[in-house]
Amino acid sequence: MLISKIGEFGLIERFRKSIKTDSSVVVGSGDDCAVIKFSKDKYQLFTCDMLVEGVDFTLRDKPELIGRKALAVSISDIAACAGEPTHCLISLGLPKSLPLRLLDRITRGIFSEAGKYRINILGGDLSRADKLVIDVSMLGMVKKKGLVLRNGAKTGDFIFVTGSLGGSIRGKHLSFAPRLKEAKFLVNNFKVNSMIDISDGLAADLGHILKASNAAAVIYEDLIPLSKDAKNLSEALFMGEDFELLFTLSRSDARKLLNKKDSRFRCIGQITAKKYGIRLIDKNGRERNLKPRGFTHF
Amino acid sequence: MLISKIGEFGLIERFRKSIKTDSSVVVGSGDDCAVIKFSKDKYQLFTCDMLVEGVDFTLRDKPELIGRKALAVSISDIAACAGEPTHCLISLGLPKSLPLRLLDRITRGIFSEAGKYRINILGGDLSRADKLVIDVSMLGMVKKKGLVLRNGAKTGDFIFVTGSLGGSIRGKHLSFAPRLKEAKFLVNNFKVNSMIDISDGLAADLGHILKASNAAAVIYEDLIPLSKDAKNLSEALFMGEDFELLFTLSRSDARKLLNKKDSRFRCIGQITAKKYGIRLIDKNGRERNLKPRGFTHF
Repeated sequence: MLISKIGEFGLIERFRKSIKTDSSVVVGSGDDCAVIKFSKDKYQLFTCDMLVEGVDFTLRDKPELIGRKALAVSISDIAACAGEPTHCLISLGLPKSLPLRLLDRITRGIFSEAGKYRINILGGDLSRADKLVIDVSMLGMVKKKGLVLRNGAKTGDFIFVTGSLGGSIRGKHLSFAPRLKEAKFLVNNFKVNSMIDISDGLAADLGHILKASNAAAVIYEDLIPLSKDAKNLSEALFMGEDFELLFTLSRSDARKLLNKKDSRFRCIGQITAKKYGIRLIDKNGRERNLKPRGFTHF
Repeated sequence: MLISKIGEFGLIERFRKSIKTDSSVVVGSGDDCAVIKFSKDKYQLFTCDMLVEGVDFTLRDKPELIGRKALAVSISDIAACAGEPTHCLISLGLPKSLPLRLLDRITRGIFSEAGKYRINILGGDLSRADKLVIDVSMLGMVKKKGLVLRNGAKTGDFIFVTGSLGGSIRGKHLSFAPRLKEAKFLVNNFKVNSMIDISDGLAADLGHILKASNAAAVIYEDLIPLSKDAKNLSEALFMGEDFELLFTLSRSDARKLLNKKDSRFRCIGQITAKKYGIRLIDKNGRERNLKPRGFTHF
């Protein structure tokens, strides 16, 4: 059997079953970051993301933006746990024929993004490869009481997203701003019950929250903020690479947030009891079930 | 200009020049691991290593050993800093056509190696790739006073290696045991002035110690322990992938170690004043200068 048959999430499940961890580990695999005990009031976050030429970018993309993205996807994972990025390592697989000038421009993108968020780059590893591969591993820090995971959504919670969704392949996947500031604002002002970054697509990532929280959801077509690059609702639901935050708040915190009329956050629906799955209410009030499918690599 | 023109160490230097770090960083790039402040008496170690199909292994190798190696090279970096590995993430770039059975066997190798050293695997990332890529990022811990770097070699220090060198491409590069126990024994019994793991080859890695320590060395052909797989001295000097420890001790600690007649450690020479470079004394007592060259990817 080939791995394309079992699919990305099948592979991840297969992998996870073998994992055993000790008491230093608060959260192993299965969230945006792994969470490790650090000090009396802080946890350490640990995440990695691999970008591959021809899959996550092409050599026709602006090189600075390729470097930026390599860091930004990991920063987005740290933001989804409501933490601050601190340190990172960068493994590069480089084709011999890569022009030095191109590599310099990618590197400039990496360092500029690191500088923006005061992330310490601590070196990494170089290897030869047929296609360019950039793997970033990143550490972060989060106050214990500020940590947000996927598994805390509760029936009656309201569901929010930052920014707008869909069509990211037409540019935003390279230029998005990881939602660190938004995450910080949220945990400083509300009790965020669950959060994830939308990398696989709204339907898939909402599915991840629901599976982890043992819950279901209803979302409203009218309320989903479509990106100007999105051709249709489907792209917002299933395309992925938006790197926006998807999170849930209790009814009372949701009301507080909505009263602020802060355009960075949009309410798109509500968490319901598990038996209902994901229901989408369209513009005409008709209801349909949504499969939690999205972008997968295989 | 292509990156093959500037070479691996040229690239690393280019990269390092852009790096700025804050006060949380004890050692950034340029040693076997990055070193981060952790607690009153401990530092955290952070390292990553990327293995690429066709460069670091082939799909004809035993899959369990490929998985093993992916972890072992990072464990070896932690050992070179005299630390203990604690947590790791694994990024996999997978060809769609990879047989699931093969991936399962690689995974088994990864988990068995992690289990052996009680390393917590915390998940990672999956991507599609044309060739199999495995990037492991690993955290470790070391007592502050036990940390050993490349830069502490002193004139008069004796130079030692663990195990035997050369010919690793014929098998040992897949099956070597990272020298964690040996490193622990050393720091518990001696003041280890400098240490590195031999990944690029004895000449190149001794060169790294000398450059960092602003020193030179004389080594003796007669004293270099050749692996049974090594065809000649050159393979021990320049081939790389031995993953043995290379370290230096003061004269009095060297005498203490030699008196133990512990066959795991072999004295191969001595640190000298900087002006001498690396000199090799051959079996006939003739001296020649050794270039610190070794395996490079480009």
